[in-house]
Amino acid sequence: MALKFGMVGGGIGSYIGDHHYLGATMDNLAELAAGCFSRNPEKNRASAEKRLIKDMDRVYTSYQEMAEKESARPDGIDFVSILTPNNSHYEIAKCFIEHGISVMCDKPLANTIEQGEELVRLVEENNVQFGMTYTYTGFAAFRQGREMIKKGMIGDILYIRAEYPEDFGMNMVNDDGNLIETDAWRFDPKQVGASLATADIGTHAEQVIAQFTGLYIKRVIAKMDNYPKNLALDTNSTILLDFGGGISGEIWASIIASGHECGMKIYVIGTKGSLEWSNETPERLLYTPKGQPTQIYSSGTGRGYLEPVTRELARVASGHHEGYFETFANIYRSYMETMIAKKEGRDPGPFTYPNVKDGLHGIRFVQACVESNRNGNVWVDV
Amino acid sequence: MALKFGMVGGGIGSYIGDHHYLGATMDNLAELAAGCFSRNPEKNRASAEKRLIKDMDRVYTSYQEMAEKESARPDGIDFVSILTPNNSHYEIAKCFIEHGISVMCDKPLANTIEQGEELVRLVEENNVQFGMTYTYTGFAAFRQGREMIKKGMIGDILYIRAEYPEDFGMNMVNDDGNLIETDAWRFDPKQVGASLATADIGTHAEQVIAQFTGLYIKRVIAKMDNYPKNLALDTNSTILLDFGGGISGEIWASIIASGHECGMKIYVIGTKGSLEWSNETPERLLYTPKGQPTQIYSSGTGRGYLEPVTRELARVASGHHEGYFETFANIYRSYMETMIAKKEGRDPGPFTYPNVKDGLHGIRFVQACVESNRNGNVWVDV
Amino acid sequence: MALKFGMVGGGIGSYIGDHHYLGATMDNLAELAAGCFSRNPEKNRASAEKRLIKDMDRVYTSYQEMAEKESARPDGIDFVSILTPNNSHYEIAKCFIEHGISVMCDKPLANTIEQGEELVRLVEENNVQFGMTYTYTGFAAFRQGREMIKKGMIGDILYIRAEYPEDFGMNMVNDDGNLIETDAWRFDPKQVGASLATADIGTHAEQVIAQFTGLYIKRVIAKMDNYPKNLALDTNSTILLDFGGGISGEIWASIIASGHECGMKIYVIGTKGSLEWSNETPERLLYTPKGQPTQIYSSGTGRGYLEPVTRELARVASGHHEGYFETFANIYRSYMETMIAKKEGRDPGPFTYPNVKDGLHGIRFVQACVESNRNGNVWVDV
Amino acid sequence: MALKFGMVGGGIGSYIGDHHYLGATMDNLAELAAGCFSRNPEKNRASAEKRLIKDMDRVYTSYQEMAEKESARPDGIDFVSILTPNNSHYEIAKCFIEHGISVMCDKPLANTIEQGEELVRLVEENNVQFGMTYTYTGFAAFRQGREMIKKGMIGDILYIRAEYPEDFGMNMVNDDGNLIETDAWRFDPKQVGASLATADIGTHAEQVIAQFTGLYIKRVIAKMDNYPKNLALDTNSTILLDFGGGISGEIWASIIASGHECGMKIYVIGTKGSLEWSNETPERLLYTPKGQPTQIYSSGTGRGYLEPVTRELARVASGHHEGYFETFANIYRSYMETMIAKKEGRDPGPFTYPNVKDGLHGIRFVQACVESNRNGNVWVDV
Repeated sequence: MALKFGMVGGGIGSYIGDHHYLGATMDNLAELAAGCFSRNPEKNRASAEKRLIKDMDRVYTSYQEMAEKESARPDGIDFVSILTPNNSHYEIAKCFIEHGISVMCDKPLANTIEQGEELVRLVEENNVQFGMTYTYTGFAAFRQGREMIKKGMIGDILYIRAEYPEDFGMNMVNDDGNLIETDAWRFDPKQVGASLATADIGTHAEQVIAQFTGLYIKRVIAKMDNYPKNLALDTNSTILLDFGGGISGEIWASIIASGHECGMKIYVIGTKGSLEWSNETPERLLYTPKGQPTQIYSSGTGRGYLEPVTRELARVASGHHEGYFETFANIYRSYMETMIAKKEGRDPGPFTYPNVKDGLHGIRFVQACVESNRNGNVWVDV
Repeated sequence: MALKFGMVGGGIGSYIGDHHYLGATMDNLAELAAGCFSRNPEKNRASAEKRLIKDMDRVYTSYQEMAEKESARPDGIDFVSILTPNNSHYEIAKCFIEHGISVMCDKPLANTIEQGEELVRLVEENNVQFGMTYTYTGFAAFRQGREMIKKGMIGDILYIRAEYPEDFGMNMVNDDGNLIETDAWRFDPKQVGASLATADIGTHAEQVIAQFTGLYIKRVIAKMDNYPKNLALDTNSTILLDFGGGISGEIWASIIASGHECGMKIYVIGTKGSLEWSNETPERLLYTPKGQPTQIYSSGTGRGYLEPVTRELARVASGHHEGYFETFANIYRSYMETMIAKKEGRDPGPFTYPNVKDGLHGIRFVQACVESNRNGNVWVDV
Repeated sequence: MALKFGMVGGGIGSYIGDHHYLGATMDNLAELAAGCFSRNPEKNRASAEKRLIKDMDRVYTSYQEMAEKESARPDGIDFVSILTPNNSHYEIAKCFIEHGISVMCDKPLANTIEQGEELVRLVEENNVQFGMTYTYTGFAAFRQGREMIKKGMIGDILYIRAEYPEDFGMNMVNDDGNLIETDAWRFDPKQVGASLATADIGTHAEQVIAQFTGLYIKRVIAKMDNYPKNLALDTNSTILLDFGGGISGEIWASIIASGHECGMKIYVIGTKGSLEWSNETPERLLYTPKGQPTQIYSSGTGRGYLEPVTRELARVASGHHEGYFETFANIYRSYMETMIAKKEGRDPGPFTYPNVKDGLHGIRFVQACVESNRNGNVWVDV
Repeated sequence: MALKFGMVGGGIGSYIGDHHYLGATMDNLAELAAGCFSRNPEKNRASAEKRLIKDMDRVYTSYQEMAEKESARPDGIDFVSILTPNNSHYEIAKCFIEHGISVMCDKPLANTIEQGEELVRLVEENNVQFGMTYTYTGFAAFRQGREMIKKGMIGDILYIRAEYPEDFGMNMVNDDGNLIETDAWRFDPKQVGASLATADIGTHAEQVIAQFTGLYIKRVIAKMDNYPKNLALDTNSTILLDFGGGISGEIWASIIASGHECGMKIYVIGTKGSLEWSNETPERLLYTPKGQPTQIYSSGTGRGYLEPVTRELARVASGHHEGYFETFANIYRSYMETMIAKKEGRDPGPFTYPNVKDGLHGIRFVQACVESNRNGNVWVDV
């Protein structure tokens, strides 16, 4: 394999661990060489075995030790995947960066804007590569849209809408309209911070916009709602967007949207046409040249009309499906192809992925939304 | 026939005239008995002939004369349809109301809030029936949704989204991004007032919400955008909604939405489930009981699971389509069944239609949006 | 109005009568001048009044008298619509044709192939115009497909599939799997002939193919099934098609297809691409040039990319809907525009409609299917 | 891991190899312990390394040696995956079975009915477990349908339709309508046998029916078409089905279906309702109880209304997607859970997978179709 990587967190039994492991290894570009899955030595070792780590000396019970030892080895890992609880991302990422080890981090990047800014600075100073797994941005048809916008196929962007409706929040409410107790910790501001729906899924919408259009939100007006009423966190969030230059937009993020399971969707209007992509049919991209019939672009191998990167990313024939794991794998592959290209002094070509600055922008976005809502739904700069 | 009606405007060659004529006569409840189609006597007479008016003495060249003479006849018209240019609705409606004749009026109701309030007062004082043809509210599946909400099938309403994307504005822009001259008058604030997209189609969304849920918007934050840039009117409008009682929502109205032709859609979340209706498949209503599979309700005859009013309104077997004309006819039918029931001292049952107060609320809504946008996107009461 | 027409059958209370009346009058090309709605003089007169016939002398209690008197008048009707029970179409049509009056006939044309052949001969001999209202062939987007095939946009046709699933037959069966008695007459071979599903809806599919592609079925293998089991008629029919020249196809017609209400659909593969149209979204036509993205053609005014006839037929802006009544009106309009053009010595242009030969082909098709099924599912020529 | 497996064929660079490797290892139930990827020792070794085989002594250059040595080891593989060219499946499968090693085999099972029957016999005699990877039958929503039918939710089955349209054949034809030479070998009867579309994808439809409904086709009438005309193999196949007991159906398989990429779909009518599943949205199952609204069942975790096996198979939350790799993994998981349960003396519960008899039935089906077509489209027993 071209690369070696490590994992912090994500042992056997971890939902997110499986995603990242499959994502990193699916294309035979990297092999898991080191890990720190658990502080419990037994669990740690069991996870390492199942994740097929060959050398048990590279299974660590502290991430600090792992960063230290791996950075000291001539055959040390090329990058580490951080899959621990959200509030630990910052410290672990910082440690590996400072040891010169590149990072792939689950979202969010950090707990505060200050932490995020520090990581951006450290990444630059230490010249490491930092990726973030904003899932939806990895779909091949999604990347197709990005390339078409870059080529000017819809002209200048005028307006952007992104929505992310889910219904899992409804499962947490009993018939009296109160939180079901066993899940209450998931809705505790002390655990999840100042925002729930906006932070958890609104940020996906924010990054979907950034990765699809190349545009970053400049200021927001956010209206956050909570259900059940005795919950101190937003479960539904409607956000007016200003991108500057006369470009407006909207994000809607909801975890109480009965009838919608994971409806992440983006729609972009330009002067020459529009593009629409939805996670409900993630292999499809709707392209409407101004005044013409809508065209259904389909990702997958065997479609000559697609952009090079779309064809590169496709693993299965068009009509077959690549799902949640594969979009993780696409982000990993893009990250790793970039790393390999750099090693070999080549241009990485069309491969791209959300990076540490994207992670920082996500934190800023949530904070601006919280502030806008707190102050009566006024414009707040991101 | 049970009823006689008249038309002001809407002669042969008038797009909207055909809609209303077909709408009023489709169900054999009313016959066109009088009309004032044009100030030109020849055109007036020709239209009357084509619209099958039997008595040419009842074809008038002024609406004032029509109101006067029809109100004096023992067999005078039961109601008049007003289909003249928008800025004349108020004066014509006022005239007929004051002569004790009921009115069916194309939107908008009037030019100003004051005029609208006056009409509301006059309707009450003169004890006439006043309907407004907000098209989408007439679809049988739409009415099915209204009944299900009234019966509590989705519980207490939490959040409401309505969108109305169209693309016809794009046809008015040339390749340089400027208005095509021949259509320029359609985009002149002197002609159309202070708003274009919000007034023209945003009000449809506002009424769709009111007629579907029974809720009226209390205050708004509106962000209006214009394209092309040298246009002084909104072509795209994103509006945060507050219904009071902790219920939020959003309206998006756009006439530059390439890829969408007439995508009027409403989605309502309640504590026990959700409902979704879209003009793209207007015979379908999506109902999702909390935690259960989404169900596709289909209007049309032969569906025992539908509410009485939905079955009453259906003219064709389920699977067949009723379109734009038929939804007009549904509003007319509801208006006329109510009138007949009143005459006969019966309860009109489940028939309902947008009325003069709905028309007034539409004007208030547009004005609040314009003010919010002008003042930097702040909350403005409707 | 340009034309005068009469109706035989289709009085007030008649479902199909409303469709034809609306269809014939929607575009202000014809006026109902004569009628024979019922043998009961009172009912006849009441229907005439509601259908707005002006001259009560032209309301007849026998169709023979109507044919005689109308053909004798200098201002006699230009054509008659025949809306009586199926088994009377032949004799009534024959009578009017022999009096030199053109005919618009509801399907089926006649009871036997011999009768159909006679009508074809009589139409030619008497030089009258004969149309048949095969509903689905009237949709503007359907006609768009026809024009595109004629222009060669999908190349040479290779294969054709048409399906027409409905579920109304299921409503006639009780929980024990037996016919509900009150509807039993609808399923009596003496009433409906040798076939139910094939004759009732399979023929629609047959004509949809003919009008869309210009191809007529040469021979069939039909497999007919019946449910409930004690029913002597087909409720589900699967038919292999041979069009000659190496072109194959299939028709499936079912009245027991739970989950499908009126899913008439056609899909045609050619050497250069494919076309697909479905009554579920009748304003849409899916066009896939070989190897390219599928394009969604949308009928309605304002779409410059459409063929002339599609634009001509559209009454509402794209995105709005034209339903069951409007497709009837399109067939009527095409029939009447052809008649007017002939009168004026003009070419009717792209207007077209199913004619008497199409009606005959429909009878032949059903008979061939019945024979194929009876003989153990062998090829039978149409 | 619970199990050890080996691979014959499917080395690095093999499309199908990746699918099976991922499928077998995705759920951490098995580890690749042995392999015979290539006769070229270097390639063989490279593949073994990439596929993470730990012990290089278990990398063999002949499958015979592999069968022999692995069956002799106390820690030998529990099963072998056979991923070699189609015409070698029989001999390799036979070899492993005779050494008492269980098999997972890519379709088709064998080249002739006789070979298939022999394998069925050998499987029984040697008491091994034999699975076949008919891809589509692995989707969780597909399995949901199977369980609902078994529970009687649609009553007695009346009619079954399955279609599998693809368009890849069109890519092989140039503008003159001839085969593109470089692909000609793929269309050579000597290479692929007597059938192309029917054997390649029609058999998927046949198994989709068997696994969904539990019914096996008793006899067929097949009409096979070929395009381009100079091709000696079917590219489009329409097949009437008889399941006995008055149950009919149809299969359509096409590789020239422009506009369809991988539209495997099944629709089943029963006396109490219907079920519909399509690979175009593989997480969805449409269930229509007779006379009631259609319900959209969605697979994925978190849906309490699903059958146990559907919930078991789901790896991601509903709304997220599982694709082509995951459905392979579902078949592998079902196969392996059954194997583990057997080892542990437990009932495997609801896990199921296509087996050697299914493979044999697939061969019989293709042969019957070829014969029916050759003999002028007559009924031929399967």
